[in-house]
Amino acid sequence: MTAQPDASRDEAVIAALVAELGERTVLAGPDRPARNESDWSTLGPQAPLAVVRPATTEAVAAAMRICARYGVPVVPQGGLTGLCGGARPVPGAVALSLERMTGIEAIDPASATMTVRAGTPLQVVQQAADEAGFLVPLDLGARGSCAIGGNASTNAGGNRVIRYGMTRDMILGLEVVLPDGGTVTALNTMIKNNAGYDLKHLFIGSEGTLGIITRLVLRLFPKPACTMAALCALPDYDAVVGLLAAARRGLGPMLSAFEVMWPDYWETVGDMPGVRVPLPQGHAAYCLVEAQGTDEAYDAPRFQAWLEQQAEAGLLADAVVSRSMADVTAFWGVRDACSEFPLVLGPHEPFDIGLPVATMDAYVRACKAALAGRLPGAFALFYGHIGDGNLHIVAGLKGAHPQPKDVIQEVVYGLVREFGGTVSAEHGIGLTKKPWLGHVRSEAEIALMRRLKAALDPDGMLNPGKVV
Amino acid sequence: MTAQPDASRDEAVIAALVAELGERTVLAGPDRPARNESDWSTLGPQAPLAVVRPATTEAVAAAMRICARYGVPVVPQGGLTGLCGGARPVPGAVALSLERMTGIEAIDPASATMTVRAGTPLQVVQQAADEAGFLVPLDLGARGSCAIGGNASTNAGGNRVIRYGMTRDMILGLEVVLPDGGTVTALNTMIKNNAGYDLKHLFIGSEGTLGIITRLVLRLFPKPACTMAALCALPDYDAVVGLLAAARRGLGPMLSAFEVMWPDYWETVGDMPGVRVPLPQGHAAYCLVEAQGTDEAYDAPRFQAWLEQQAEAGLLADAVVSRSMADVTAFWGVRDACSEFPLVLGPHEPFDIGLPVATMDAYVRACKAALAGRLPGAFALFYGHIGDGNLHIVAGLKGAHPQPKDVIQEVVYGLVREFGGTVSAEHGIGLTKKPWLGHVRSEAEIALMRRLKAALDPDGMLNPGKVV
Repeated sequence: MTAQPDASRDEAVIAALVAELGERTVLAGPDRPARNESDWSTLGPQAPLAVVRPATTEAVAAAMRICARYGVPVVPQGGLTGLCGGARPVPGAVALSLERMTGIEAIDPASATMTVRAGTPLQVVQQAADEAGFLVPLDLGARGSCAIGGNASTNAGGNRVIRYGMTRDMILGLEVVLPDGGTVTALNTMIKNNAGYDLKHLFIGSEGTLGIITRLVLRLFPKPACTMAALCALPDYDAVVGLLAAARRGLGPMLSAFEVMWPDYWETVGDMPGVRVPLPQGHAAYCLVEAQGTDEAYDAPRFQAWLEQQAEAGLLADAVVSRSMADVTAFWGVRDACSEFPLVLGPHEPFDIGLPVATMDAYVRACKAALAGRLPGAFALFYGHIGDGNLHIVAGLKGAHPQPKDVIQEVVYGLVREFGGTVSAEHGIGLTKKPWLGHVRSEAEIALMRRLKAALDPDGMLNPGKVV
Repeated sequence: MTAQPDASRDEAVIAALVAELGERTVLAGPDRPARNESDWSTLGPQAPLAVVRPATTEAVAAAMRICARYGVPVVPQGGLTGLCGGARPVPGAVALSLERMTGIEAIDPASATMTVRAGTPLQVVQQAADEAGFLVPLDLGARGSCAIGGNASTNAGGNRVIRYGMTRDMILGLEVVLPDGGTVTALNTMIKNNAGYDLKHLFIGSEGTLGIITRLVLRLFPKPACTMAALCALPDYDAVVGLLAAARRGLGPMLSAFEVMWPDYWETVGDMPGVRVPLPQGHAAYCLVEAQGTDEAYDAPRFQAWLEQQAEAGLLADAVVSRSMADVTAFWGVRDACSEFPLVLGPHEPFDIGLPVATMDAYVRACKAALAGRLPGAFALFYGHIGDGNLHIVAGLKGAHPQPKDVIQEVVYGLVREFGGTVSAEHGIGLTKKPWLGHVRSEAEIALMRRLKAALDPDGMLNPGKVV
């Protein structure tokens, strides 16, 4: 690493990047787009030294090599929709955006695989699969903006993990540029490949700290022929656990979502304009169960029969079942209403924790009690992908400016540690959750993460200060 | 690493191991069991310096630390059923067998997880899940002998990967002893956990070269309520690809196996005593399709209807459908008859390659032609888990002693490279496939594997010379 004074080093690296990649690819000074200064976290903007937007793997590798040579760190960027600051520039770093590296390279219908460039928005990937007669089951609210490479770097989750798994489970191969500018092309297209270490897992979910994902091979799935859903009210949390077990057994691999909403959530959403809540308040828990089938003639009556069995078994206090896709969409409207919480609730702290399923309700009760003790008058809504052990929380103190963020985090994450959960089920660590990583990962685990980081990026050139 | 003369170092390390772990755990000299000298590969026996059989994670870590201190390498051993020499001792090494570290530690029905010690035989794990009302879908012929830790270390496959994935996909958490004797306990029980790097993937499939797996958290699945199967004869390979696509669409996630047998295989098995082959010879390909359902009343007629649709679409030349579990078992008898090949065919070379599904038949034809050219009179049978891109081959020259192993491997692996496949779909690399790793992994990939090995095991203490 050359030890030059910063200003001249900054000028030199920009000049070298422009010389190698051209002015269209390297935006510095007043040409830097404001959008590359932040992601969807609450950290606020941080201007990068320059924004580099390569359109090929070779150009990504060249940019990385030049930056490494000058000792200037690189922050990889996809769609900038991350919630934890993983793609936010760090001071003095070059932002390397994959936004121009887009497009579907190949679809192999026989192997059911798609090769795609990392900057391609998820929605474009979904549409290309759909047109080829397949499904890319990864889906999240940011689908129009987020990039598939960012989904891989953060191991994005979403609503149908219970059936299809996380992004990790949908990836067969990767191409990656390493912190030293070397390229590892491992675009495997086979479901089974045990020839040596499976390197892709090192880069999936490591939030751009070990390499820059440039291309991916995705696994394609058959499109479901029909979707059935039910909204259920349950008498207690034991019934939730019972209903989940019954759904796993009775719906088997058709089970595509198992979302639970606690009463405070239901009441808040019920007051929101435009949301139709089809079951009354006052129940202990509410659950959205969804199944995807291959033949409506068989699967719709089976879903109905399964639901009736659960009612007979005493697991349901009340329930409505979908009669059409419009019903399914309306049911999801109740669950997706949380995207309007910033408008409805005002400032608050959002959480994305994980817990063993059996302990969730005890956690919720402990968390509400602790918040009430530490912050009288605080609100806390609980909901999430309970079938996957993933609980979302929004908590805050109405009217407080600033919000008592530290106290809320202490309560939520302190109890997560106590209950054996995780501080991040699907959003990652980035910058914002880094102080809490030690709550749920042991010293030995964090030391091993650091050892991997040192092995791949000894000079800290790639996304420094993130995750570990 | 202490540089002592070997004989005294050997005595010293054994004395240190006995002092720390006791005589029952450390078997040296004439007490070393012969079974620990080899696995199911054809490499033949190699006596280890000693066999250490710790019963706790702490004892595994202590053994590893002592061996590292004396510079004596360690070869981890599970059930010793691997086919590539991954668990075979290397000269001068201590064999560290997990055979006494057995037992189920916990089952959590709400989260559908099981915590188990690494030396537990797969069959014991399967039975414990079954008794708790769940399924461990990993299944292979060696189930009675292989250890679940070995399954994880080799990322074992098996018959139902198309539905449930490889062993990797069934593991939520791991505990591992590192080459320096440190322990990393990451016994995660949640499906979603994005708190930092997902360290388990480093150890799954790396064949005991990066760490010794001591405990695992497995994901449990619901038991299927019914199983339907069909044996089909197909007019050509295009029909195979068409039937696979139709099975993915029409059977969806119920599809639990898609096994293809080429004509030579069918004819050979048809001549074997005790095997009932229910379709005549002379077709281009034979396929075993299996689906697992949740309700026989719905799923059996649906499977039958699906099969009739495929016949009407012209994809089937002939077919038989199961009417009972006895039929399903008999159909699998045709596919599993390959386990008798050593008796029926005499000496031969077995292969476990992977290929993109669309190219498989072209590969088979090229391979047969090349073998006929290089070795007139050679036989070659092709069959495998085609839905997962996994092709097995047995090839040989009848009556030849020794077999022309090098020529056969050159032909098979040379064409694998040409067709963009893998030299190991499920058996791993170990020692026997190491010379061929460069056929299907680039220099950059192998360099990155070596970098990981150096980062975790700089002194080459753990399973040296294996994989990379």
